[in-house]
Amino acid sequence: MKYPIGAIKKYNSYGNRGMGLESDIGESNRYYLVNDIAIIHKKPTPITIAKVDYPSRLEAVIKEGYFRTPSTTDYNGIYKGKYIDFEAKETTHKTSFPLENIHKHQINHLKSIYKHGGIGFIIVRFTSLNKTFLLTIEDLLEFINGTTRKSIPFEYFETKGYIIKDKYNPRIDYLEIIDQLYFKGGNNGK
Amino acid sequence: MKYPIGAIKKYNSYGNRGMGLESDIGESNRYYLVNDIAIIHKKPTPITIAKVDYPSRLEAVIKEGYFRTPSTTDYNGIYKGKYIDFEAKETTHKTSFPLENIHKHQINHLKSIYKHGGIGFIIVRFTSLNKTFLLTIEDLLEFINGTTRKSIPFEYFETKGYIIKDKYNPRIDYLEIIDQLYFKGGNNGK
Repeated sequence: MKYPIGAIKKYNSYGNRGMGLESDIGESNRYYLVNDIAIIHKKPTPITIAKVDYPSRLEAVIKEGYFRTPSTTDYNGIYKGKYIDFEAKETTHKTSFPLENIHKHQINHLKSIYKHGGIGFIIVRFTSLNKTFLLTIEDLLEFINGTTRKSIPFEYFETKGYIIKDKYNPRIDYLEIIDQLYFKGGNNGK
Repeated sequence: MKYPIGAIKKYNSYGNRGMGLESDIGESNRYYLVNDIAIIHKKPTPITIAKVDYPSRLEAVIKEGYFRTPSTTDYNGIYKGKYIDFEAKETTHKTSFPLENIHKHQINHLKSIYKHGGIGFIIVRFTSLNKTFLLTIEDLLEFINGTTRKSIPFEYFETKGYIIKDKYNPRIDYLEIIDQLYFKGGNNGK
């Protein structure tokens, strides 16, 4: 049985628990939750279960399972009454972000969210440059529709994206940017 | 390692795929999605992975995993620009719905969603009576706060809940009720 390569990478990244973008977003989401600012959760990794053992009445152990391709993005929730939806990715590339890092159906999902009045975006970290950007689905689609390139140049993130500065708590305060864009009548506001 | 009993029941219910409330909601959500009415998905079952084998470079098999207690409800998404969040449960009881079927943190989650301007509810099917109800989080909380009972009487669903009629497509059109409650200035509308 085949499984998506992305899923393996994701699983392997568990070895780095406590580090990395996923962990930073997780801690930021906990900060938002505990302080009653927003309710945003990461969805569990989808797994197809093929075999379960029951060593005792109160114990179930999955003995055979396979990673599935996720049908949506990893994160969603609610902030100031608005539906929020995003995908987060790290890249070691220095000059561009390869689009193959995001499934086409995830981009289509974000596009639908936008059409239905939600706020959709991607968070991309260039690990070698130690820079993290938020790029709205509107600007992501503008890039994709205007090019045949297979990757987004770093300059596009500098021009159209919004840099997320490292903070102590929350570690990456992406809602600060969402605030400016959608709730304070910024240029890109709706 | 212990796992939540609810998780096993959920897993066992996979044997009944194609039947039951989960399947009806899944098909209804696909109908909403395909017809561009709403984007509502079921979250994957959360699993802690303990061991993975790689029989080949392109294959990963989970060899040991455990069910985790979900931290939120099973379903969320967006409808007419509003954040939607709900939990769905079946019961074979005929006179009441035991509250132990819903984790306390799931009720608290729905309460927070409501506070943040989202639409939260539960869908409960009394399988022996073949009746399915939608109960808003507002009415669920009103019941819980006014009683020490460990189950919600069937009459409470008849009085405060909204019956979801079986249809051909979508099978259970719960958004029809959400429409009446929140988008058409109904009595319970916001």
